[in-house]
Amino acid sequence: MRKRLSLQDYAAGIRSGNRVILSQAITLAESTLDSDRELASLLVQEVLPMTGNSLRIGITGVPGVGKSTFIEAFGKMLLDQGKKVAVLAVDPTSQLSKGSILGDKTRMELLATDKRAFIRPSPSGHTLGGVSARTREAMLLCEAAGFDVILVETVGVGQSETAVKNMVDFFLLLMLAGAGDELQGIKKGIMEMADALVIHKVDGDNLDPAKKAKSNYQNAFHLFPHPEKNWSPKVLLASSLTGMGLEKVWDLIVEYEQKMKDSTFWEANRAGQRINWMEDQIQDLLGQAFLRNEKVKKMLESEKAKVKSGELHPGVLAQRLVDLFLAQGEKR
Amino acid sequence: MRKRLSLQDYAAGIRSGNRVILSQAITLAESTLDSDRELASLLVQEVLPMTGNSLRIGITGVPGVGKSTFIEAFGKMLLDQGKKVAVLAVDPTSQLSKGSILGDKTRMELLATDKRAFIRPSPSGHTLGGVSARTREAMLLCEAAGFDVILVETVGVGQSETAVKNMVDFFLLLMLAGAGDELQGIKKGIMEMADALVIHKVDGDNLDPAKKAKSNYQNAFHLFPHPEKNWSPKVLLASSLTGMGLEKVWDLIVEYEQKMKDSTFWEANRAGQRINWMEDQIQDLLGQAFLRNEKVKKMLESEKAKVKSGELHPGVLAQRLVDLFLAQGEKR
Repeated sequence: MRKRLSLQDYAAGIRSGNRVILSQAITLAESTLDSDRELASLLVQEVLPMTGNSLRIGITGVPGVGKSTFIEAFGKMLLDQGKKVAVLAVDPTSQLSKGSILGDKTRMELLATDKRAFIRPSPSGHTLGGVSARTREAMLLCEAAGFDVILVETVGVGQSETAVKNMVDFFLLLMLAGAGDELQGIKKGIMEMADALVIHKVDGDNLDPAKKAKSNYQNAFHLFPHPEKNWSPKVLLASSLTGMGLEKVWDLIVEYEQKMKDSTFWEANRAGQRINWMEDQIQDLLGQAFLRNEKVKKMLESEKAKVKSGELHPGVLAQRLVDLFLAQGEKR
Repeated sequence: MRKRLSLQDYAAGIRSGNRVILSQAITLAESTLDSDRELASLLVQEVLPMTGNSLRIGITGVPGVGKSTFIEAFGKMLLDQGKKVAVLAVDPTSQLSKGSILGDKTRMELLATDKRAFIRPSPSGHTLGGVSARTREAMLLCEAAGFDVILVETVGVGQSETAVKNMVDFFLLLMLAGAGDELQGIKKGIMEMADALVIHKVDGDNLDPAKKAKSNYQNAFHLFPHPEKNWSPKVLLASSLTGMGLEKVWDLIVEYEQKMKDSTFWEANRAGQRINWMEDQIQDLLGQAFLRNEKVKKMLESEKAKVKSGELHPGVLAQRLVDLFLAQGEKR
């Protein structure tokens, strides 16, 4: 059996910045056992006053754009500036395909071996909702442990971007120059989410096409203004190989932070994210309770075959099951 | 007030292939009123014996790949073969951005004016779960009305592909030749879903690059075999402008249908889809009941501010609310 500490021991360990205990606490939050997750939830509540002070940065881009090398180089630069950096990942595909991002810490050797950095792969064995709830708890635990920049990596397309956007302060989209005019298949919705776009791998003979791409993307961004926060997304060039542009990316993020904190947006955004988190969690908990209910299980068992065969409309059985579940109360 | 027919009148109208009544019935299913949706659900159950006989084809691809022109040309060819064709859409972004796909029927003028075709834009005002449940009901209603090919269009990236994959028999991915080596940002997960890939807009000087792309994609597909159904995804070339290749696409789909019907896969796949539909619907219904509950509303009202401000862990309030909701039963 895995060793479990007391709530106070976890909290004390995290407050003192103990990386081993931080790691164990995140494992607790990622557990599929209710008792583990309840303890983790109490722990998050316990350390909540120590959270919220980090800068939370989401990083996305299609496979091949160099997210890992960017995070490695960018994270290293932040360490050199005296920051403590945590790297988390949201990858809903990892349950199926054994994790494509951050699955292998050796891809970020510099960060993985540095004590001021903390790297955690995407939790597996959860739905996207579960993955993002766990990553959010991991983020707060890292903050309580003293990390002041949290980088959240995700894959370049799809629903996981929305999940990450809903947990970060700043959303960074990595792109390549000269990879086609179709904006590399990046969905309009993801362009809309981005606070900045970094054209990556700008080294070797790549500068001229990158400059051209910069101007194209900057034009494209005019289609996606952010009037609610008075911010125009910027396009920057960077190379993780030479380090070119990385400081400018950081300067831009700091400028953004200052500007949003000066307005009401920063706090309003975080408040909205907390509510969104709660809503996601409610959905998960309701679904779990439903599937454990004995009467529901029994009706499902006897009627499921009729839905399978096409004799009974799935919507009709869904309604019956939910009515049955809701009619019970304390007996549950 | 909108006119509502009786269950029997809707059913009779649909059975007789009355397009106006079909359209009204779909509107009923898309309604946000419970009473409308309940009637729609009963209607689907009523006509269920007449459903299931169509060939359901999902069509996806990034914006710019020409989904609408493909569906127009492909659908026209099927009409000429004596088929009745319905075109539906799943677009979860349409609630935000006023509908990017099928929003404007005039993009498919030929189909829109042909009485053997039926075009229905993506329902709006629902979550992705709601959109796909409504589209599934629309699909069954179209089948009961005698349409024998259902084309379901969706956007090229993200979660909506999974929703569409879960409601169709055959999943077709449209791509362009020469638009970059990054597989146009199409997520690995979407390549994995595809039963065939069509390189589109192969006209003019485009034949040679298209042939090269075909060979590349065919190689890429070796990475995504489908052992569960003994099918290797094929790559085809087509032009909606000249009509080149469209018949071959149809032949391939028919070959697939025959092969899958000869094995157990066809029926097993549809059975799984029905169960998946039920599960989605349960989640929606639970969420709705929760949000209408008076005690839940009250606690939410008094505690929400603490979550917003960061004083109370979202996961803790979520648990309290769900516990409160589940403790009630009949009183609800």
